[in-house]
Amino acid sequence: MLAAERPLDTVHDFPAIPAGWAYLDTAATAQKPRPVIDAIARAYGETYATVHRGVYQRSADMTLAYEAARRRVAEFVGAGSPNEIVFVRGATEAINLVATCWAAQQLKSGDRVLLSMLEHHSNIVPWQMAAERVGAAIDVVPLTSDGRIDLDAMERMITPAHKMVALAHVSNVLGSVLDGRRASEIAHSVGARILLDGCQAVPRMPVDVAALGCDFYVFSAHKLYGPTGIGALWARPELLDAMPPWQGGGAMIDRVTFQRTTYAPPPGRFEAGTPHIVGALGMAAAIDYVEGIGLDRIHAHEAALVKDAREALSQFNSVRLLGPEDSAGIVSFTVEGVHPHDVGTILDEGRVAIRAGHHCAQPLMDALGLDATARASFGVYNGPEDIEALARGLERVTRIFG
Amino acid sequence: MLAAERPLDTVHDFPAIPAGWAYLDTAATAQKPRPVIDAIARAYGETYATVHRGVYQRSADMTLAYEAARRRVAEFVGAGSPNEIVFVRGATEAINLVATCWAAQQLKSGDRVLLSMLEHHSNIVPWQMAAERVGAAIDVVPLTSDGRIDLDAMERMITPAHKMVALAHVSNVLGSVLDGRRASEIAHSVGARILLDGCQAVPRMPVDVAALGCDFYVFSAHKLYGPTGIGALWARPELLDAMPPWQGGGAMIDRVTFQRTTYAPPPGRFEAGTPHIVGALGMAAAIDYVEGIGLDRIHAHEAALVKDAREALSQFNSVRLLGPEDSAGIVSFTVEGVHPHDVGTILDEGRVAIRAGHHCAQPLMDALGLDATARASFGVYNGPEDIEALARGLERVTRIFG
Repeated sequence: MLAAERPLDTVHDFPAIPAGWAYLDTAATAQKPRPVIDAIARAYGETYATVHRGVYQRSADMTLAYEAARRRVAEFVGAGSPNEIVFVRGATEAINLVATCWAAQQLKSGDRVLLSMLEHHSNIVPWQMAAERVGAAIDVVPLTSDGRIDLDAMERMITPAHKMVALAHVSNVLGSVLDGRRASEIAHSVGARILLDGCQAVPRMPVDVAALGCDFYVFSAHKLYGPTGIGALWARPELLDAMPPWQGGGAMIDRVTFQRTTYAPPPGRFEAGTPHIVGALGMAAAIDYVEGIGLDRIHAHEAALVKDAREALSQFNSVRLLGPEDSAGIVSFTVEGVHPHDVGTILDEGRVAIRAGHHCAQPLMDALGLDATARASFGVYNGPEDIEALARGLERVTRIFG
Repeated sequence: MLAAERPLDTVHDFPAIPAGWAYLDTAATAQKPRPVIDAIARAYGETYATVHRGVYQRSADMTLAYEAARRRVAEFVGAGSPNEIVFVRGATEAINLVATCWAAQQLKSGDRVLLSMLEHHSNIVPWQMAAERVGAAIDVVPLTSDGRIDLDAMERMITPAHKMVALAHVSNVLGSVLDGRRASEIAHSVGARILLDGCQAVPRMPVDVAALGCDFYVFSAHKLYGPTGIGALWARPELLDAMPPWQGGGAMIDRVTFQRTTYAPPPGRFEAGTPHIVGALGMAAAIDYVEGIGLDRIHAHEAALVKDAREALSQFNSVRLLGPEDSAGIVSFTVEGVHPHDVGTILDEGRVAIRAGHHCAQPLMDALGLDATARASFGVYNGPEDIEALARGLERVTRIFG
């Protein structure tokens, strides 16, 4: 049944994964490899200081490390310059930033924003809030029958009234991979800007914003084997330059008086306050880790796991598989007559951790006619034994509910 | 010269402070004690999972730990309920949140906001941005001759047009401690709301929001011996209840459709996206640490250090001390004829780390007629030897520039 050889053997890098625990919730958050944990502990326990402000050596060194982390993130996604990278709390903040600061000048009453039916709430609600502020409207690209964003439909729908297109690069529910380059070309054909939500893409495949041709790209570190509380926004420099500030405070200003305040150039303009210094260093360590393995290898590894998982799950008559065959590292499914939460609970008793719920994608659930799905998602630490455990757990589910 | 007995002996808890290094920049960011670093490493290396979503035990346990951290923060500042605590990136985000979400409904054209001359940029710029959005105006409470916010002047200035008063509980430049209770009474006498910026207070003295009588209280964990990228907003529950959302995304919603989205109650409404889970746990560990010592003891310890530092610095004819005698843990000064950056650089050569600059308080610098000050700020790990090192460094400064 499980033919794939195991191309990666990294589970021993992950101290929080005990032997025999099948952690299949990486799309929610990834476990952390030892080098990331060590980088964080070292930053707090050996080299800690603030950045950008101290006149002493320790602080100057930490500033270099923080800006080196920005450079590392820039290289990771193929940005032209570190100044195109804004550190944020995560992808959610990044999208809110764009939907506030970019939209403040570029989105007007009567304009339209184009999303897709499979977007995460973080790529829906900020646009609803932005649209409401200015009197813009939202249109929704439907999905193909196998759960991809339907770019042919998008091509037919898009009009010059669409100023922004915001799409998931990889669906967090279905694992469907977007053809980001074609989506960018369609957006640009009417003069719209395009934002790609890369949360589920950057841990699973090589990403190059120049090759994608997009205008904004966002992702979170914690799904990329990095720390919580940090993520990145990449944007074309001319777009960042034109955007008004995000939050007000220290480090984002040029000169403050009570009469008039002027702002720093990007990326500082968008990073008010003491940043998540150690988060940035941990994010760089996470990038070092995945690049040390190679994103191509990770992608192949997860593709093999998805193939095996779909094969294993299709042995069960009561299981309905969702999403495309070639999904990236994520398999959603339902079990006839069993609520996904019960599936999740029974699997947990067998030491298999999956997610069950709406996955912050209620409109997609509505479109699928479901309340919830069960979702298994993979990371570098998973192997065939995890899929065997998933299959054993599902046997138990079907026995109990059969 | 240095008479104070050393009431605390905690420096060995801080692995990033090598022997002989006088770290006097705690007002910028505090060093981290071993229990905080361990709590962070344990969260990533043993118990890591996402919160609020998983159906498996590990995630349920992490959710309990995350919400226990919220309860810990609530107790720490005397909040009535954990639901009055919103986790934010830091005090800067907290003030921006209030200046956006509270102001969205409560600040109108013609209204006024009252700040003080010594505020940090983080407590100026967000209000300027809010005022500009709605057409409100800002007034500035002057300082007393010894560098306190002049509450008598505030009492004379405030009018019913003032809807918000936002003041530093402890000045980050001068260390001046505000009488927060009197300030709250003055604000409330005209029906204004009052926000206190507690960044420099919570590491240095017991804080009780009920006793203070304020409406909003904000602080950052990284100045409280905790991790970067996390902080807290406390607000009266009825104010939080009435406020519209901050960022849109996962976890802050009740129900999302493309037609209409409804929002979760506080605090979730203000915490879109996967939170800085490990940051919250680290913040709770930091609170355990300072409460283990006792805030009263820390306050007495730092008061003794300030007294000694002021005495030591006053031996130098060329040194001008700023701020009140009884400042909390922070001493700003200038050396005649020497730029503060040069003071900082020379001190660094003698292994004394201070801050030199405008301390994100340019309006205060303007009011003092200065570009910059040198600032020594203390923490639990400092002792008389650090003040001796500071004095030796200043001897060298005066020799070089004398």
